[in-house]
Amino acid sequence: MEPLLFDPPASRYLVPFDGSFDIGKADTDPPDDGPGKKDNQEALASAVARIAKVQAKLYADDRFSLLLIFQAMDAAGKDGTIRAVLSGVNPAGCEVTAFNAPSAEELDHDYLWRHQRALPQRGRIGVWNRSHYEEVLVVRLNPKFLGAQRLPRRPAGEGLWVERLASMRDAEAHWARNGVAVLKFFLNVSKKEQKKRLLERIDDPEVNWKFQAADIGLRNQWDDYMRCYQEAMNATSRPWAPWYAVPADSKSYMRRVVAEVVASSLERLDLRWPELSPEARAEMMKLRATLAAD
Amino acid sequence: MEPLLFDPPASRYLVPFDGSFDIGKADTDPPDDGPGKKDNQEALASAVARIAKVQAKLYADDRFSLLLIFQAMDAAGKDGTIRAVLSGVNPAGCEVTAFNAPSAEELDHDYLWRHQRALPQRGRIGVWNRSHYEEVLVVRLNPKFLGAQRLPRRPAGEGLWVERLASMRDAEAHWARNGVAVLKFFLNVSKKEQKKRLLERIDDPEVNWKFQAADIGLRNQWDDYMRCYQEAMNATSRPWAPWYAVPADSKSYMRRVVAEVVASSLERLDLRWPELSPEARAEMMKLRATLAAD
Repeated sequence: MEPLLFDPPASRYLVPFDGSFDIGKADTDPPDDGPGKKDNQEALASAVARIAKVQAKLYADDRFSLLLIFQAMDAAGKDGTIRAVLSGVNPAGCEVTAFNAPSAEELDHDYLWRHQRALPQRGRIGVWNRSHYEEVLVVRLNPKFLGAQRLPRRPAGEGLWVERLASMRDAEAHWARNGVAVLKFFLNVSKKEQKKRLLERIDDPEVNWKFQAADIGLRNQWDDYMRCYQEAMNATSRPWAPWYAVPADSKSYMRRVVAEVVASSLERLDLRWPELSPEARAEMMKLRATLAAD
Repeated sequence: MEPLLFDPPASRYLVPFDGSFDIGKADTDPPDDGPGKKDNQEALASAVARIAKVQAKLYADDRFSLLLIFQAMDAAGKDGTIRAVLSGVNPAGCEVTAFNAPSAEELDHDYLWRHQRALPQRGRIGVWNRSHYEEVLVVRLNPKFLGAQRLPRRPAGEGLWVERLASMRDAEAHWARNGVAVLKFFLNVSKKEQKKRLLERIDDPEVNWKFQAADIGLRNQWDDYMRCYQEAMNATSRPWAPWYAVPADSKSYMRRVVAEVVASSLERLDLRWPELSPEARAEMMKLRATLAAD
């Protein structure tokens, strides 16, 4: 039985579940006849309001949680998208976790350990800025990171990455079985647009604290990253944990698309306002009378 | 590829990997021609010494960890066995976790969450007194515990338990892939011997703090527990996470059998003393000269 908590909203950017996703053909730009910036901003505001509204019910219902995973090449706009899409929600019910280099304690456990610890509680929204997928991206392309993990066994050839993707698929199915609705976004920026944004970072004193020499280095591995992203999304886009590969060259369009998928997904959960039992209701009405006569 | 970190030591108590285990035919007593108490105690001491010796190498190697899981009906002797088998090891490299009723924060996550957090670090031995298997035992047989988990979906019929056992199998395979050697022990006490021990608890002022009214209640569900144990062990005894169903009516025999399986398993791990690189060795010898001349 598929652990399906909601039907993934249809979208031209939904990564198919049959392994046929071709990253080379995926859009980095909005459609030619797509909406303008003002239209996008209005649609974003409307989706953000919907998210905030459903969040209250998610919290009261206290059975589901929502996990939003963001992955992208540098400067694709993860931070800005998270801010734009989630800024309307009650922070008491939302936690953003950024995954950077693992600590010594984290390296001393399996690579899913720190991610599992960060899973959202029932009734909450969890947002992951980077995620366990880095284990089949940056770790795959940089042997020194793998060395730090001190693995006692290593299947031959590509076996390690096949195993890791199986572990991730298994983990996400387990989460869904237990009420965690998983949505994964790949913010798909073009190499050309990334160059433009990195140059802006260097030239603008207000944002150049964001610049890191490593960002440039990754550009040499661009094609390798795309291959790893494609493999990861094909291996793990499933109805209960779908990937959306969203064009990132237009920020307003990207934010709108993400917000609409999040809003529609939340609205598709079988959320219910908790109901008082007849006994509890009778008790409450008795207390109401006492209070009124006080 | 099977994530096999060691060949499970052969034993008449090893639960087969093909689902053919019949708990009704499993021994609760030592063999008729089995060893005497003194023989068992000597064998235990010898196995404990082997465990302590390998533990030092496990710690230095810092790639594997060992997870020992103990499950049993009440009064089978989990606590005493853990004490007897692990009392020789360096506590700095060993952590025992007893899983009792989950906290509110734990109930707000999937049922594997608290167990994953308690996984041993590389180089260490983790011991679980009860475990995630309670989720297909006491939780299965007591609907009120399941209610507290606030699951938003529930597969029909026995589907929920089939799913839970699949999640456990997946999780244990993931642990093994990443260097966690898993050994699971079911301490198999007979209903008759349990009665005797519970009566002793009530009558002995030094141990009757251990007695709980609930222990008696579980005896009414004995056959249900046996059915759930059998299903769980058949679904999850695998070469990389084997179950041993050890007779528990003789404490000295049980402790000996467990200690010998633990010792043999540890000795079968591919542990290596860390080697200094030639550069590090040269540097060390230079420092040695400085120190000697100080």
